[in-house]
Amino acid sequence: MYTPPIQDQKFVLEYLIGFDSIVQQLSMNGQNTEEIDKDLIWSILDEAGKFASTVLAPINHTGDQQNSTITEEGYVRTPDGFKEAYRAMCEAGWTTLEAKSEWGGQQMPMSVSAAVCEMWHSANMSFALCHLLSQGQIYALQKSASQEQKETYLPNLVSGKWTGTMNLTEPQAGTDLSKIRTKAVREGDHYKISGQKIYITYGEHDMAENIIHLVLARTPNAPEGIQGISLFIVPKILLKNDGGLDKPNDIRCISIEKKLGIKGSPTAVLQYGDNGGAIGYLVGEENKGLEIMFGMMNHARFSVGLQGLAIAERAYQKAVLYAETRVQGIPIAAEKGTPINQHPDVLRLLSIMRSEIDAMRALIFTGANAMDIADNCAKEVFENEQKRASVLIPIIKGWITELSVLHCSSGLQIHGGMGFIEETGAAQYFRDSRILPIYEGTTAIQANDLMFRKTIRDEGQTIRFLIEEIEKEMEVVDDNFSKPMSNAIADVISTLETLLSKANDSRYLAANGVNWLMQLGYFCGGWMAVKSADRAIKNATRLPDDFVKSKIICAEIYLQHSLPHVRTYSNVINHEDNSILNMDVNWLHRRTA
Amino acid sequence: MYTPPIQDQKFVLEYLIGFDSIVQQLSMNGQNTEEIDKDLIWSILDEAGKFASTVLAPINHTGDQQNSTITEEGYVRTPDGFKEAYRAMCEAGWTTLEAKSEWGGQQMPMSVSAAVCEMWHSANMSFALCHLLSQGQIYALQKSASQEQKETYLPNLVSGKWTGTMNLTEPQAGTDLSKIRTKAVREGDHYKISGQKIYITYGEHDMAENIIHLVLARTPNAPEGIQGISLFIVPKILLKNDGGLDKPNDIRCISIEKKLGIKGSPTAVLQYGDNGGAIGYLVGEENKGLEIMFGMMNHARFSVGLQGLAIAERAYQKAVLYAETRVQGIPIAAEKGTPINQHPDVLRLLSIMRSEIDAMRALIFTGANAMDIADNCAKEVFENEQKRASVLIPIIKGWITELSVLHCSSGLQIHGGMGFIEETGAAQYFRDSRILPIYEGTTAIQANDLMFRKTIRDEGQTIRFLIEEIEKEMEVVDDNFSKPMSNAIADVISTLETLLSKANDSRYLAANGVNWLMQLGYFCGGWMAVKSADRAIKNATRLPDDFVKSKIICAEIYLQHSLPHVRTYSNVINHEDNSILNMDVNWLHRRTA
Repeated sequence: MYTPPIQDQKFVLEYLIGFDSIVQQLSMNGQNTEEIDKDLIWSILDEAGKFASTVLAPINHTGDQQNSTITEEGYVRTPDGFKEAYRAMCEAGWTTLEAKSEWGGQQMPMSVSAAVCEMWHSANMSFALCHLLSQGQIYALQKSASQEQKETYLPNLVSGKWTGTMNLTEPQAGTDLSKIRTKAVREGDHYKISGQKIYITYGEHDMAENIIHLVLARTPNAPEGIQGISLFIVPKILLKNDGGLDKPNDIRCISIEKKLGIKGSPTAVLQYGDNGGAIGYLVGEENKGLEIMFGMMNHARFSVGLQGLAIAERAYQKAVLYAETRVQGIPIAAEKGTPINQHPDVLRLLSIMRSEIDAMRALIFTGANAMDIADNCAKEVFENEQKRASVLIPIIKGWITELSVLHCSSGLQIHGGMGFIEETGAAQYFRDSRILPIYEGTTAIQANDLMFRKTIRDEGQTIRFLIEEIEKEMEVVDDNFSKPMSNAIADVISTLETLLSKANDSRYLAANGVNWLMQLGYFCGGWMAVKSADRAIKNATRLPDDFVKSKIICAEIYLQHSLPHVRTYSNVINHEDNSILNMDVNWLHRRTA
Repeated sequence: MYTPPIQDQKFVLEYLIGFDSIVQQLSMNGQNTEEIDKDLIWSILDEAGKFASTVLAPINHTGDQQNSTITEEGYVRTPDGFKEAYRAMCEAGWTTLEAKSEWGGQQMPMSVSAAVCEMWHSANMSFALCHLLSQGQIYALQKSASQEQKETYLPNLVSGKWTGTMNLTEPQAGTDLSKIRTKAVREGDHYKISGQKIYITYGEHDMAENIIHLVLARTPNAPEGIQGISLFIVPKILLKNDGGLDKPNDIRCISIEKKLGIKGSPTAVLQYGDNGGAIGYLVGEENKGLEIMFGMMNHARFSVGLQGLAIAERAYQKAVLYAETRVQGIPIAAEKGTPINQHPDVLRLLSIMRSEIDAMRALIFTGANAMDIADNCAKEVFENEQKRASVLIPIIKGWITELSVLHCSSGLQIHGGMGFIEETGAAQYFRDSRILPIYEGTTAIQANDLMFRKTIRDEGQTIRFLIEEIEKEMEVVDDNFSKPMSNAIADVISTLETLLSKANDSRYLAANGVNWLMQLGYFCGGWMAVKSADRAIKNATRLPDDFVKSKIICAEIYLQHSLPHVRTYSNVINHEDNSILNMDVNWLHRRTA
């Protein structure tokens, strides 16, 4: 069972971000906003919630237990119900939410689509991954493809008739894309692609009639390293001149991975060009492939952060329901028959999950709004807005996905022994969540980005900009909230100063990147928790009484239990100790004598 | 590949615990210690290491992938190689290490058997669980069974010819054993047992000719609750008068669970008495069953803490090997082709795992030694020694198993995308570890024990006793080590004072139990890390130079990265905030509008 958290979503959109801001972005995006009012957006959320809870959620656990499967011929079968659910998703128009209207999209701002996609991922992360990948491709093609390419591929991708994939990884080239070896040889108006790509999510499946692969490859004589990588459109089935489907391209799905989680989604190994070369079409210019990829990276990383929120929310809901029906022992000061949610430690786990998840959601929607503004703002403010969004992305991806694993672990723990039994379902979220701190750049990669590109490069300017924004917002909140946040601000500033003083010691900075990311994550969470409580109090007349109270108590819980981590990371980083870097890797080995 | 960490084990046994102390316990245990010298014990470790790495480790991953399986008739087949490995284990005498010599055992102290069992669990936790359960039963029978029962069951259990199980849990009775419903009706010299037991590890399998179940059940007219529970020996196959095997008892294995981890080990649902009642024999007196169980609880909880160390060690070793062969990107200030273990963040993860695991091992062996002393000391010192051991048990079980999940998660993370693929094996440790904070009492149960029975009941006396011991040991170590530990001691004392001041607020104490447990865990870890470095420095002439250096740097890393958590928990607890307890459970629900 999944309950779309629409009350909380609407609260963040309306009172933290501001509805005007959302509509404004729609209009800047070229939408006619006269017909768009709150009721329309609310009804989108309501309908999405129904679709997520009644169509996608019921096939989540069975999908995990069945897995996607592959035949000897390389035909991939998704779990029962996935195909039908995908068709229903297309028919209801849900695949068109994000894309531009000229390609059949509804052009919603990210703050709205984030709310909708949160529900897809909570309901069924394995299923929703297909949509996530297609959106990434649509985003890339809208931005970088030729007009002809856009006309050829975008309408069918937007309608969901075709799906899209990203082909980056090769066995020797994961985080380090400079090592890509897949070849692309020009032949008239197209290229012949050959090589092997791994970890291709929905690289092969049975839900759509065609799959469009975006493939990173290297042309002959291309410069070494990342300067020599180009991006190609490689359709699974080639197209006739009229746009209809022609014969299959030279691509073979060799196998799909047996994974720890997200088992409903097929993760394919694709072999290109065993029979002369797969036909591919260059996107943009030769050797500019990574730039195009980087151009969509913020959106992709944001989406994975969103998955973190979504899976934590689902694990939380499951734990809440279990804990209110399971009776085991009599909680202190309670009557016989009182369920375990009244045991103080169970309540502790649930409450911390709740307060952190609410903070995560507020931060994600805030990040989405920052990206919307950056995408749409006037040129003169672009740089600042862009920076504001760009500093939030690694925090959203890194901090939220790390927390999502911890939350899914807490959710499992609340189930006791039942949590360890697959039938219960809590274990699935724990397994599913574990990919999130890895794909689209590990937490360490996010931390490097945050540390070097977004902290050190501009000498802390962007971070100070963020701190000032938070400081200013804290001026108007209740003292009980602003006081602990003031301490946290001081901690963050002192850590920033330490880091800037170490600007020439890259190894120290790299060793402390994740600490810095986690510190800023917990800090931003505090900002959001307090802001939520403050806005709830100030709009109390328009909100249910219990809801206001719950936001206040979530902020209190966050400040007591989560914010102290800011100090911990401050202590770790400010200690300026090089012990880790002094560890000789040879000493890591065990010896039998 | 598994490398027995014997160098580290010997270091802890010889320089932290002291070899004399170990031999002394052997002699107090009635062993003739003239023939037992260091070489003998060292050769036990060496041989165990060989057995673990060459026989048990190679069938670990295949065991996980195959699972134990069950036929329609209830016949359970363990994974390939388990049966043969178990036979080899018996033939080599490894099942006899712990038991008393009168029943065929070698009567080794726990500090030695802990070192050996660490290697079993690292090599193959699913397999080693069978031995763990049998040892628990042997311990219980040695302590509480009649002479006739001992003579009937112990020799075959000790030799490994038969294995033992613990039957506590029922669907409605997990943590709360007062709810047990299984019935035992007296009939002459035996009882007829009927009911259903779940989560019975190795409750049915094909590795031994008989399985002896220890079953908690309720006689007619027994008092309600835990005062009415009795303990019974219920053999899978009944015995003839001459001790030979007779016909099967009335026990049926209905199913085995599909679990998140430890999949090689069968977890059975056992149905007793469908055909008139299974024949069982009372252990001790009626209604005293839980006391007997509680009598072995310390040993069982200790063993699970040991599993936490073992699985973390295995995950660590795998990550070390992967990180030194995987090349991906060029680490800062390193040459092209340098493996990822030189990336500062990978080194950070590995180093923290290493320093915490070393601290965990030292703490576990120290705990084992404390239990040995408590078991063997003269009556006049018994109470103090018993307390010393008893306060370490919940910390060992709670803190180490919580950390083991985090370490297995770090180990997986170091593998990047490969970590998420089951073939790699890193994911198995992550899954296996997740049971450890649950079974034998969840972390919250350990925390309750630590908080109420071991902190509040004697007004902090036992905790102060532990703090004083640590304080005293810190007096002789280098200032660089003693200074951060002094701060940590002050933090622990201030937290203890807060808790004692709240002695009448049981809900506050219960809500902070896990915080207190984790605080003491990180604190004891610091104690052990510093003690290890200090002992290494002071015995530097007898130890390899690199080994001494590695212990020093591990202590430094621990003090910088792990000890700060002591302050964090102190801040959380001392805040004296009731926000969690003020959370209304009704507010935990999400609403769609």
